Amino acid sequence: MRLRNKPWAKDKLLEYPQYVVHNPEQNRGKWNEVFDAPQPLHIEIGTGKGRFITGMAKANPHINYIGIEMQESVIVSALDRIIEEELSNLKLMNVDAAELAKYFAPGDVDRVYLNFSDPWPKTRHEKRRLTFKSFLSVYEEILVPKGEIHFKTDNQGLFEYSLKSFSEYGLLLKYLSLDLHQSDFEGNIMTEYEEKFSSLGNRIYRCEVQYKN
Amino acid sequence: MRLRNKPWAKDKLLEYPQYVVHNPEQNRGKWNEVFDAPQPLHIEIGTGKGRFITGMAKANPHINYIGIEMQESVIVSALDRIIEEELSNLKLMNVDAAELAKYFAPGDVDRVYLNFSDPWPKTRHEKRRLTFKSFLSVYEEILVPKGEIHFKTDNQGLFEYSLKSFSEYGLLLKYLSLDLHQSDFEGNIMTEYEEKFSSLGNRIYRCEVQYKN
Ligand SMILES: C[S@@+](CC[C@H](N)C(=O)[O-])C[C@H]1O[C@@H](n2cnc3c(N)ncnc32)[C@H](O)[C@@H]1O
Ligand SMILES: C[S@@+](CC[C@H](N)C(=O)[O-])C[C@H]1O[C@@H](n2cnc3c(N)ncnc32)[C@H](O)[C@@H]1O
Repeated sequence: MRLRNKPWAKDKLLEYPQYVVHNPEQNRGKWNEVFDAPQPLHIEIGTGKGRFITGMAKANPHINYIGIEMQESVIVSALDRIIEEELSNLKLMNVDAAELAKYFAPGDVDRVYLNFSDPWPKTRHEKRRLTFKSFLSVYEEILVPKGEIHFKTDNQGLFEYSLKSFSEYGLLLKYLSLDLHQSDFEGNIMTEYEEKFSSLGNRIYRCEVQYKN
Repeated sequence: MRLRNKPWAKDKLLEYPQYVVHNPEQNRGKWNEVFDAPQPLHIEIGTGKGRFITGMAKANPHINYIGIEMQESVIVSALDRIIEEELSNLKLMNVDAAELAKYFAPGDVDRVYLNFSDPWPKTRHEKRRLTFKSFLSVYEEILVPKGEIHFKTDNQGLFEYSLKSFSEYGLLLKYLSLDLHQSDFEGNIMTEYEEKFSSLGNRIYRCEVQYKN
């Protein structure tokens, strides 16, 4: 995601504690108390400007959502959307996904979404990919048993890599589309990247994988 | 594969016992005796007119190959190619893949190739797909431990289905290309269907999966 220098971003995030969770480690094991209603919790990692997660939160009021994004200059745009929509089942967290086990206890999270994650195409950057085994292990730590990851991207190399990484980790492939926008998948909510790259003619790949226990 | 009525096909297959194996159950557990040299054995299921398997046999003289095709009117075209090339490491078998465990003992086969298998798109025909679990179980019975299936097709629906079926069966995804002809895969040998459908602009999908034991 292109970075613009936004020196005011940190302050703005602090101004909206009802939408931006500031000391997430204090909620570990009791996220239900943070939301108005105790409901299943789905998180998106690398939320960007928040188009997907606000769309999901609006469409599914009986699920709680957290958008996780490590760049404050990006996550402030997601904050603007939530302020506008006044969504009570959606919060944001400005943290690094590698640290999630600090903030979520085992079983706190019911589903993980990954959308258009940074591809890190060079082999020496493999460890940074959000579908690398160390991340799959973090998600496993915080998910319910048989928890799922739902992943979409237009990046062919990242998708190929990720399907192999999921298989190697022992995840079950439950859903697969190699051309989402031509498929019969219903209720797709586009991300910013998805709008941009599908309008350029790129195919969108999507899968759902499940932990075996 | 389109069928032309070839009443002479059966006789022609019988005329070339050096290339067409007629009583395969007699070779169960001792296929090495059937070939000039004891070498690893790779089989292709649904060989069609044999472009791939003859190409492979020529390119890899230190591997033995068997092309398996249940339609005699199709397999005779593969026979013509072998006669022309005089290949000693390639044979044909005119049988149904569902019966392979009758002809091969556990460990007789080192690798299975599936190329452009019939897609059987209707759900009620799922059992006929060569990547349905009953077939995966037949391949497992005849393969060496950690044996592999190498699969390519241009059919998106069949490829999506097959990756899910492989995952469900517990196979490990070792190689994946979602656009083989644009990839850096070396030494690809095209099948008849691959030539035809790639020239129409279709993408070719390819994967390698491995049994866990
Ligand atoms: C390519 S953008 C995609 C944004 C959005 N998901 C979309 O589809 O439009 C990827 C985002 O993931 C964020 N990101 C990458 N690694 C992360 C990590 N370890 N923790 C949190 N966010 C991360 C980046 O800052 C970036 O904003
Ligand atoms: C679509 S054609 C592809 C031929 C060739 N592999 C190619 O790529 O050009 C599929 C072939 O598989 C054969 N076939 C389908 N099911 C089979 C089975 N159960 N056992 C043996 N052959 C089978 C069909 O007869 C047909 O010739």
